[in-house]
Formats: sequence, structure tokens, C-alpha cells
Amino acid sequence: MGIVDRALWVKTRDAMQKRMLEDLDVGYLDPDIYHVLQALFRRGESFPISSCSGRITIVDARMPWHRKASTVIFKKHTAVEEGEVYTVLRSSPPTTRLWLVATGPIFHISTLTLREAAAILRIAREAGMKHSGILSISRRGIFVELKTGIRVTNLLRAENFTIEDIRELVRVANEALAEGKSRLAKFYDLLTASEKLT
Amino acid sequence: MGIVDRALWVKTRDAMQKRMLEDLDVGYLDPDIYHVLQALFRRGESFPISSCSGRITIVDARMPWHRKASTVIFKKHTAVEEGEVYTVLRSSPPTTRLWLVATGPIFHISTLTLREAAAILRIAREAGMKHSGILSISRRGIFVELKTGIRVTNLLRAENFTIEDIRELVRVANEALAEGKSRLAKFYDLLTASEKLT
Repeated sequence: MGIVDRALWVKTRDAMQKRMLEDLDVGYLDPDIYHVLQALFRRGESFPISSCSGRITIVDARMPWHRKASTVIFKKHTAVEEGEVYTVLRSSPPTTRLWLVATGPIFHISTLTLREAAAILRIAREAGMKHSGILSISRRGIFVELKTGIRVTNLLRAENFTIEDIRELVRVANEALAEGKSRLAKFYDLLTASEKLT
Repeated sequence: MGIVDRALWVKTRDAMQKRMLEDLDVGYLDPDIYHVLQALFRRGESFPISSCSGRITIVDARMPWHRKASTVIFKKHTAVEEGEVYTVLRSSPPTTRLWLVATGPIFHISTLTLREAAAILRIAREAGMKHSGILSISRRGIFVELKTGIRVTNLLRAENFTIEDIRELVRVANEALAEGKSRLAKFYDLLTASEKLT
């Protein structure tokens, strides 16, 4: 196709791979995601730019999608316990809007060709990452986002609003997280299965 | 590029335009969206496949993204009142999980070329539809999704869970809807401004 500058793309990929290995060394990498990132690098025409294995957060914001005007006051990539949420609630002012948010896995990937982008999208869809697509195309690469529809945002507290019993909301957040992790595992399985085919 | 079959694409576009006019005649069309659909058809290399101006729903589902195993028991494209939500709550069995969901506008568009897809994505991003991308590329067209990050899903009821005072949740849903409609208005303004440029 000739849209992407191959030399520039390979240089960026190699730099990203180096950074991932450094992040691994210093313990920055989410252990749920490392093997998936490795499998993406192994494909040759793809590399991960950023990723998340799925997480539960408590966000102080008017609305959960207001990124700039919001603060993440709690973040965890594994199941949460009620006590953790109560601790955050006790230490926060009573008038802010607090949201308990759970999201599935997300990947931003750069591919060298449209063909490779299509192949990655096919695998992602099969794994249940149905909200995936190409975000932009430039000489720096084909920029692909892989995402599930998994997302719950429950209001925990606001002015004149409070949840007495958070048990069900914590249960829901943990269920969402688990469903995300299981799609991530399927994505990894399909990625490695596609390696054996070629 | 030659990826898309032009004759097939034009035939599909003309059929979709005919269907839109029929939908308009029988009153199926959301009045908040008709002028945007028209502006998309006027571009020549784009046509809308499906769209929503933003809406508030009450969904009976284990999780709000379980499309097949869920039932939409209430749907409205304008602001809701507390009474409407209480009416739904009164008429639903007490053990199901009910979610109050508000979402921003969404469009599925087919474009003839990658260049047109990129142009539409640029306009959508500028209007605040930041979760937009190309979902697939085939001879039938470049399939583009335009979407905001606007989405709240609040649990209204579950086994052992109920919200006593729904005022704040209704307020949040209406705020989300309004924010979506304002981005839709901006998208329309940018679409028509880009017409004048060419």
C-alpha cells in the first residue's frame, strides 16, 4: 500500500520493545498483559503502543468521561473488596461525585499494513473485543484500538446521594473485571493459535 | 485505492437514501438526526447506515453490554422525568438487575474511499466524538463508526439492592444526554461548514 513509512515504523517498534523490557525490569508492567504484548511484537507487523488488562477505578468527576476534569483516586487491576471502597469513601469529601468504574481490556496497536490491521481486528472480534477499529492512518503507522463493550459506571456518592450498601456495586464491578480478563485470555489464545498457522 | 466496488456502493447508498425518506414519511425518524443524515448524504462519498442521536434506556440485564440476554424496557431520545423511571420500577419484578443507561450519539457510516473516511473522522473528533474509527474495509465500503465516550450505566435495582432516591441518577442521565446532543449539534455545524469550504 505504501501508506506507512517502513523504516520509521520499524525504528518506533524497536524503541517500544526496548521500553517494554525496561518497564518489565522495574516492575511497571501489569503481569496480566506481558505475554500478550510479547505475542503482538512477535507478529512482526504489529506493536503495542499502550494497553490495559482491565481495571476497577474510583473516579472523582462530574461525569466519568471528563478525563481532564477528573481524578482517579483508586485503581486496581484485580478484584476489589468492599473494605477498599469504604476506605476511599471515608477519606473523600461528601459533596463530590464519585464513580465506581470497571472496564475491560484495551489495546492501542500500530500496524505496518492495512492487511495486518484487518487480521488483528478479526482476532480481536473473535475474542469478544467487539468495539475495535482503526483510529487513524498515517505514515507513522495504522493506529488500531482493540476494546470490549465491558464498562460499568456506578455513582457511589454525590451531593444528596449516597449508596448505603455497596455490596452489589462491588459485585458488579468484579464481575465486569472477570469478564474482561476472560476475553483477554481468549485474545491471547487466538493470537498464539494464529502464530502456529503461519 | 480501488478497495471499494463503486457501482455496488452507489447502489447501496441510493437504496439507503430511499429508505430514509420512507422512514421520514411514516414518522420513524428521530427528529434530532434527520438534518445530520441529509448532510452526510450530500457529501457524495458517505452515507449513514444506522444512527442514534443519544438516548436514555432502562435495561433488564445481568450486565448492560449483554445485548442478546437483555431487554430494553424503556427508551427515550429526550430528557426523562423521575415519574417515568418509578413507573418502570413499579412494573418490574424485584429480583432482576435494572440499569439506567444514558449514551451519546452514534453513527455507522459507509464511505467510498479511505480519504473520505479520514475526513469524516477528523470532523467527528473535532466535534467531540473521540471514540470513532474504521471498523472494517471491504468492497462494499469503508465502514466507519462515530461515537462519543458519553455513557453512564447506573444500577437501579438488583436482588438485595435498591436505590431509594433516584433523583441524582435521573439528573446524571439527563446531563449525559444533553452533553451528547450538544456534541451532535457541533458535528452538524462542522459538517455543513465543511460543505461551504469545497
